[in-house]
Amino acid sequence: MDYVFSDKMNALAPSAIREILKATSQPGIIPFAAGNPAPEAFPTDAVREISARLLRDRPVDCLQYGVTEGYAPLRERVKADIETRLGIGTAADDLIITSGAMQVMDLATKVLCNEGDTIICESPSFIGSLNTFRSYGVRLRGVPMQADGMDVDALEHALQTEPNVRFIYTIPNFQNPTGITMSLAKRRRVLELARQHNVLVLEDNPYGELCYDGDVLPCIKSFDEEGRVIYAGSFSKILSPGMRVGYALAAQPIIAKMTVGKQASDVHTTMWAQLVVDEWLQHDDVAAHVRKICEIYTAKRDTMCNGLAGTALCYQVPAGGLFLWCDLLPNIDMLDLTKRAIAAGVAVVPGSAFAVQADDKINAVRLNFSTPTDEQLVQGVAILRGVACSFS
Amino acid sequence: MDYVFSDKMNALAPSAIREILKATSQPGIIPFAAGNPAPEAFPTDAVREISARLLRDRPVDCLQYGVTEGYAPLRERVKADIETRLGIGTAADDLIITSGAMQVMDLATKVLCNEGDTIICESPSFIGSLNTFRSYGVRLRGVPMQADGMDVDALEHALQTEPNVRFIYTIPNFQNPTGITMSLAKRRRVLELARQHNVLVLEDNPYGELCYDGDVLPCIKSFDEEGRVIYAGSFSKILSPGMRVGYALAAQPIIAKMTVGKQASDVHTTMWAQLVVDEWLQHDDVAAHVRKICEIYTAKRDTMCNGLAGTALCYQVPAGGLFLWCDLLPNIDMLDLTKRAIAAGVAVVPGSAFAVQADDKINAVRLNFSTPTDEQLVQGVAILRGVACSFS
Repeated sequence: MDYVFSDKMNALAPSAIREILKATSQPGIIPFAAGNPAPEAFPTDAVREISARLLRDRPVDCLQYGVTEGYAPLRERVKADIETRLGIGTAADDLIITSGAMQVMDLATKVLCNEGDTIICESPSFIGSLNTFRSYGVRLRGVPMQADGMDVDALEHALQTEPNVRFIYTIPNFQNPTGITMSLAKRRRVLELARQHNVLVLEDNPYGELCYDGDVLPCIKSFDEEGRVIYAGSFSKILSPGMRVGYALAAQPIIAKMTVGKQASDVHTTMWAQLVVDEWLQHDDVAAHVRKICEIYTAKRDTMCNGLAGTALCYQVPAGGLFLWCDLLPNIDMLDLTKRAIAAGVAVVPGSAFAVQADDKINAVRLNFSTPTDEQLVQGVAILRGVACSFS
Repeated sequence: MDYVFSDKMNALAPSAIREILKATSQPGIIPFAAGNPAPEAFPTDAVREISARLLRDRPVDCLQYGVTEGYAPLRERVKADIETRLGIGTAADDLIITSGAMQVMDLATKVLCNEGDTIICESPSFIGSLNTFRSYGVRLRGVPMQADGMDVDALEHALQTEPNVRFIYTIPNFQNPTGITMSLAKRRRVLELARQHNVLVLEDNPYGELCYDGDVLPCIKSFDEEGRVIYAGSFSKILSPGMRVGYALAAQPIIAKMTVGKQASDVHTTMWAQLVVDEWLQHDDVAAHVRKICEIYTAKRDTMCNGLAGTALCYQVPAGGLFLWCDLLPNIDMLDLTKRAIAAGVAVVPGSAFAVQADDKINAVRLNFSTPTDEQLVQGVAILRGVACSFS
């Protein structure tokens, strides 16, 4: 039988890059291509204890249907936590628990965009979010990244010229894939431009807690007094990605619409996971846990950066997050380097995977330092040094 | 601020019925409006033991990212189980684990339908699935239900006259809301008509295991030799709805496309839930557990049916599932009865909630017998008898 698929999904057909990425999951290969938390960064003892207590005292609450907007005590706790810690959330805002932060991108696009509408995003940007946007048949318009975040003059031009822009998508902290942090001035400017052109901002902050140098800057949402910013948060990087628990904080009418959308997507997020997160936030020392994983990742980042210093892989040291973005010297071809690295036993992601448009000029690779063990880091960096030298 | 939402989500605006349903979740009200499993039907001891073992021996597998198509051993186990038990699945089929069976409806619509395409469904049908379809901007065409399943002559007429039909949606076993089971002859006929008109069939079977009288008939998928049927299964009714674990079995190209769609929706289903289901299928006596919950629900169904015998609420005894569909005598108005029942302390769902089109003529209510306790059943039925009498 021949199958006819929807236009929007046909736009997501497998690409050459996806084929390369498949090779990166071969067993035995050193995983610089992934984005997984380090296994030693999971609070396994706490989860084990909390889960045992929940399944002993409240098994039916873990197993029965829940409400779509999420477990009420968890919603209140997260709201209070991010208000205290990040200064975000007003009386006119509401919060929905989602099945990972990816679902925030999914629901925001579903409720805000018709097919053919435009989303403005950083270029390059996180492939997962870009594909979510594409799956709704929207147009993407990229704004180039600079060392201090997106080029706000290019953003202004895009807002002036693009029709039907619905929102600006940004990862201000330790962006995936570039590792770049947006400056305070640009955070304010992005919101100002959004206001002038009456579009929304989708602020995605999965890495905010993973800050290794200096202080985290205020969220764009913290300047938002009129309900223009949808803030996406996640427990994937500080607790567990396998649990699939994220959330959106936004104006009440937006959260109400996202709730209707979520009802039609997966009804609600796994109750056990919501209850475990709620107990973890109450009873574990979350701040101490975050300090511990920041120590682990700082050491891993430094091993990778020091090992690649002076090679043809040129990087800015990221102040946080999980990724190192390496621009390549002109004599090195990104796909060629990627293939040679895989052949030598190290998986990396060609930068073009994160391109907004297929013809974006990118000659870079993204490396991840959280997934590999310390031994794999040393070994993989030595292999990459050799691969880089093989081009000269 | 004023917000502009997508056309497809505006089509899902709150209705008068949704407002009535809100009232049904008031504390203290007898819950004949829900669809929850009975708390005593959960295998809590087994889940407690399995979870403790998994979090002791394999915590990182429970907490780390997984692959989008689902935990590989669970996929193989479910494939083998439904092949043995239901005789479905060919070498050309594949299986994806989803976040509840609702996500099967979501992904099937996403990958198969453009806006404006048509889905043919039973009338009335499950409001959750209908809203999922609506959330993609598709047109719904209802086919009337008869005592032995959808009117296949009306189905043929719809297939002859509707443009761009992508699939036929059916719940052949103990349908929600009507409780009706489709006859064997009609199962074969639906597939034959789908073949003649080259459309797919989406067979939703959440209640198949909950069979109280007689034997379960073969699935439509069991007659499918060419990959025309997408089969949706669920662990919500026999294990736990709060875990959100379902699955789709379909031709490989469809599953491949649904996997790309799921990656863009929620990346993957909660790992802990997938691992618990996998262990439960291996180590617990699932057949004995299903027999036990069928005994519980048979008793509850009989209590409800016997209590309402001879009233103005006219029903066919459902051979399985969770619902009793009561047609009302012409002198009784559905919304009026619903309001009087809620005022008297019993929540029921007006049949129009399950209408495919707003102007469908329905004068019925749906009652659920799995959620209320035995005491609530006796009490609620007595109240409904009184409410029915109040019309004469």
